[in-house]
Amino acid sequence: MKTEKQKMLDGELYKAWDPELVREQAYARRMTRMYNQTTEADENLRVRILKELLGSTGNNLKMEPNIRFDYGYNIHVGENFFANFDCTILDVCEVRIGDNCMFGPGVHIYTATHPVDPYERIKGPEYGKPVMIGNNVWVGGRAVINPGVTIGNNVVIASGAVVTKDVPDNMIVGGNPAKVIKEIHI
Amino acid sequence: MKTEKQKMLDGELYKAWDPELVREQAYARRMTRMYNQTTEADENLRVRILKELLGSTGNNLKMEPNIRFDYGYNIHVGENFFANFDCTILDVCEVRIGDNCMFGPGVHIYTATHPVDPYERIKGPEYGKPVMIGNNVWVGGRAVINPGVTIGNNVVIASGAVVTKDVPDNMIVGGNPAKVIKEIHI
Amino acid sequence: MKTEKQKMLDGELYKAWDPELVREQAYARRMTRMYNQTTEADENLRVRILKELLGSTGNNLKMEPNIRFDYGYNIHVGENFFANFDCTILDVCEVRIGDNCMFGPGVHIYTATHPVDPYERIKGPEYGKPVMIGNNVWVGGRAVINPGVTIGNNVVIASGAVVTKDVPDNMIVGGNPAKVIKEIHI
Repeated sequence: MKTEKQKMLDGELYKAWDPELVREQAYARRMTRMYNQTTEADENLRVRILKELLGSTGNNLKMEPNIRFDYGYNIHVGENFFANFDCTILDVCEVRIGDNCMFGPGVHIYTATHPVDPYERIKGPEYGKPVMIGNNVWVGGRAVINPGVTIGNNVVIASGAVVTKDVPDNMIVGGNPAKVIKEIHI
Repeated sequence: MKTEKQKMLDGELYKAWDPELVREQAYARRMTRMYNQTTEADENLRVRILKELLGSTGNNLKMEPNIRFDYGYNIHVGENFFANFDCTILDVCEVRIGDNCMFGPGVHIYTATHPVDPYERIKGPEYGKPVMIGNNVWVGGRAVINPGVTIGNNVVIASGAVVTKDVPDNMIVGGNPAKVIKEIHI
Repeated sequence: MKTEKQKMLDGELYKAWDPELVREQAYARRMTRMYNQTTEADENLRVRILKELLGSTGNNLKMEPNIRFDYGYNIHVGENFFANFDCTILDVCEVRIGDNCMFGPGVHIYTATHPVDPYERIKGPEYGKPVMIGNNVWVGGRAVINPGVTIGNNVVIASGAVVTKDVPDNMIVGGNPAKVIKEIHI
């Protein structure tokens, strides 16, 4: 029989109040809280905390406080990752981010979702869908990326976009819901 | 003659710099600041602060820091309320939230508004309109709910939606401004 | 030959990792961090920090924490400026805000941008474009103002708007991207 954690990782309905998950979430809360209390003089400490907390990282990464994660270990970022202020990632499922990605301030990535049927939803169990982001992607400030979305290489997401569908390589998308604005010819 | 507070609560133009209101706002600032300094180990303290600060609550409620309120006492939440990170509620008028509601991260609810005429606006007095939210409502991350909006039961508000008009029962709405995406058949 | 700072101010591609800029950015990080640690009892200290940090201000100004700036010195605000909670301004180029402006919570103003070509972008140099805001402007909560945008006098920007183009005097704009909703007849 699957643990609640395994159900969560597999994208099935799971109970977030499972003791193992509660413990892991409390750990991520503590680590992100410590991170958010560091100062601009603590760059090395910040990198150490991120490398400890995230599932995997490159060598070069920087995230400006405040960061908010659910678990941390489901987040994988490539080489040369930069996220400006106040990035929130609800990582109940995997969030894979390629190399050379940069996020403006206030980017939110959600893998967490709930049943749409109200009577199902209020029973409590929820589920997630992974988010995948390619290489060389620039996510503009205040963008939101929804559960299940895959974003190709070289994509530019306009500031304030709400990305609800997959985005192919080399596209600029924007708006709410985000639509293709134009193709980038490389 | 009405006090400035009574005018505020009645949705009339009022002076936010009135001493009684300044004192109450400072109290809410202090309480929310203390709340935002609590840790993941302080669940009981968090609930006690919320029950002290809000107008009314159920027994079961949880809000992840940071919370931002104007007064607190105009906010009424039902049973089983959950708000994820960084919920902001400008409660110069009543905000009534039913039972079994859940908010994603970064939800903003505004009851506060200003005159549109610039010469009226810069005189200073402002006013508010109440916000009503039914039972079993799921407000997606980063959604904004505007002054005067009433949201029915079982509604799902998509992430990043800006809700400017009333939403009937059993609807999924999204976009900016938010429009009906589909009806939930229960 | 221009310094990296001069290139930045002139809207040309510049290296943000230039030692002079790194030092100035660290100073702004420290000052905004101190600001964000002040309490509601520290109004005078808050004003002193803002007057020290910003390029220029009027006498009467108030910004609710948390504030986030890149440098601070490129931000110029007129008389009677008010910004509600969690205002973020990326001021690599000038941000000029007129008299009697008020910002709702969570307003983001960006002057910082990057090359759209992915291979140019990942080389690192970035650039900016100034943002200009007239007098008597009300920027609704959660609005985003993009690099290069000029906003006229008496404008109202609806909550959650993403402003990508110039806005003439006396207009109400909203949506993502923001469009004229109506003209204000004064």
